[in-house]
Amino acid sequence: MNAKKNSLPIVVLAGGVGAARFLRGLALVNEPRATTVIVNTGDDTTLHGLNISPDIDTVIYTLANAIDAQRGWGLSEESWRAMESLNKYVKVRPENSNAAPDWFNLGDKDLATHFYRTARRAEGATASQITTEIARAWDLEQQILPMTDDDVTTVVELAEDCIAGKAGDAIGFQEYFVKYEHGVAVRAVTFNGAETARPNGLKQLKDAEVIVIAPSNPIVSIGPIRALHSVDETLQGIRNRVVAISPIVGGRAIKGPADRMLNELGYESSALGVAKMYSPIASTLIIDSADAHLREDIQALGLRCVVTDTMMVDSSVSAALAKTTIDAAIGQNQ
Amino acid sequence: MNAKKNSLPIVVLAGGVGAARFLRGLALVNEPRATTVIVNTGDDTTLHGLNISPDIDTVIYTLANAIDAQRGWGLSEESWRAMESLNKYVKVRPENSNAAPDWFNLGDKDLATHFYRTARRAEGATASQITTEIARAWDLEQQILPMTDDDVTTVVELAEDCIAGKAGDAIGFQEYFVKYEHGVAVRAVTFNGAETARPNGLKQLKDAEVIVIAPSNPIVSIGPIRALHSVDETLQGIRNRVVAISPIVGGRAIKGPADRMLNELGYESSALGVAKMYSPIASTLIIDSADAHLREDIQALGLRCVVTDTMMVDSSVSAALAKTTIDAAIGQNQ
Repeated sequence: MNAKKNSLPIVVLAGGVGAARFLRGLALVNEPRATTVIVNTGDDTTLHGLNISPDIDTVIYTLANAIDAQRGWGLSEESWRAMESLNKYVKVRPENSNAAPDWFNLGDKDLATHFYRTARRAEGATASQITTEIARAWDLEQQILPMTDDDVTTVVELAEDCIAGKAGDAIGFQEYFVKYEHGVAVRAVTFNGAETARPNGLKQLKDAEVIVIAPSNPIVSIGPIRALHSVDETLQGIRNRVVAISPIVGGRAIKGPADRMLNELGYESSALGVAKMYSPIASTLIIDSADAHLREDIQALGLRCVVTDTMMVDSSVSAALAKTTIDAAIGQNQ
Repeated sequence: MNAKKNSLPIVVLAGGVGAARFLRGLALVNEPRATTVIVNTGDDTTLHGLNISPDIDTVIYTLANAIDAQRGWGLSEESWRAMESLNKYVKVRPENSNAAPDWFNLGDKDLATHFYRTARRAEGATASQITTEIARAWDLEQQILPMTDDDVTTVVELAEDCIAGKAGDAIGFQEYFVKYEHGVAVRAVTFNGAETARPNGLKQLKDAEVIVIAPSNPIVSIGPIRALHSVDETLQGIRNRVVAISPIVGGRAIKGPADRMLNELGYESSALGVAKMYSPIASTLIIDSADAHLREDIQALGLRCVVTDTMMVDSSVSAALAKTTIDAAIGQNQ
């Protein structure tokens, strides 16, 4: 316990790695139990019959200090015996079969999480219940919420002929992201089921003093959450309390394909492009010092703009970024 | 290749460990590619969303010399990281939940087999196709057939109040066998779906020169195969070529609960009891030297009775038993 810790009701909209790093910093400056995290589940997938929620697991493992920091996903001190043994079957599967997918690595220790989620899902438990149980297993105090308990699937439509198939082919997000290493051009991203899915955390959003849009991919991490019925409207109504952190620094994504994806889908791959996407729902954008020259253009969009160090190379930077984020929101309110 | 090897078309009806040990010996005296194995799948189960076929895996792993000989199931040089990590979730599951079942051990390497089976099942492949592919992955030449491609489930009805529940409670076979360590009394065993399930291997049975009922539990290993529509009738028609090996030696099961189960269900736990169960479908029973005194009683049932060493402590004993079995069948035919 840190005597200087705030205990503000904060909601964070989160994707994977960038959000998880921010949340670890936030836990150092705000009471974890006062924080609610709404996590993207559009890239959930099923492999080997197992229900897998990559962003939720990344958030939970990171907050539990169990993440493999080097990789940014999965558990530290992991082993890969199950995956290694799968090789034997890759060789015998029929040509038209996608069984034994060996492009998505699942560590032996990590498997227990997917086993638990799958078994609870089969018993009829909701994604919220299961996520709460998993977070408790890892001794977390934050409330971790999947963005919805309904099925929403992020589908990536390919732009051109490539190894993945032909233009217009629609593939699952994990296939795009992991199998094809997000190296194929995209012409559309859709969130199947989003219009009818009921969002989680609307009440927490309305009650929060600070709402943070984490430095996650605006299209495939924050996009699915925004696509849920009434989420964008809710955020518009509380816009003065919403602070976004740009995941684009110097025109490039810190991690992942956000920069190319923004370009491919007609946005600008810059903090200014991010500002344009978020200006309807956020009143403040936090950008990296490297983008300080964009401040005026961003302010011209009707956003406050705070310049700071957003490269979360360690948890002290994360904590400082979290503190700056909270201060920006509170300053805005006063 | 052994110059003395036979190349007879042989079909073996098989359960788990005892059958697998017999099959390893058989492979030393008869061309593996001439052998068809029809394996019990009544004790198949689903855990963590994974399709698990314990008897098929025991047969395949044993024939591939990959089995953990000490345990009699699972792979050698196995690790248990996934199961160990599951502990964390056992603690948080709700009281009415059966998620994170930690009573059925799945080794990390072994998981790949369940992953493959589950993924292929989800693609619509039949149990036969999948089993053939798995056997090929392990470089086996025998034709390994699940007893049926349809769902048949062995259900164990409890006899009395016990830790497992109350009298009449019906539990799955694995729950009985593994979770309760077959330590609870049974009052009935049924094979749900057996009447309508289509058996595999009927043609091979009719074409075989020798049919062997392996030393497996007559009730829960061979019972499900016999319960399939037309299997018993088929065996009756070829009875003169069918040789059974008693799994009961000196009144006791070599492994597992066959002895108690036979008593509980009104049979005799002895080679003579086994003879009575198999006399309609087998013309020869092979019994252990320890039971030599039962030979006349068994012959009085209209069975030939061969006395030999059936304790398969190593593969040379298994091979000798296999040779004796083949000779008995061929002698019978001549």
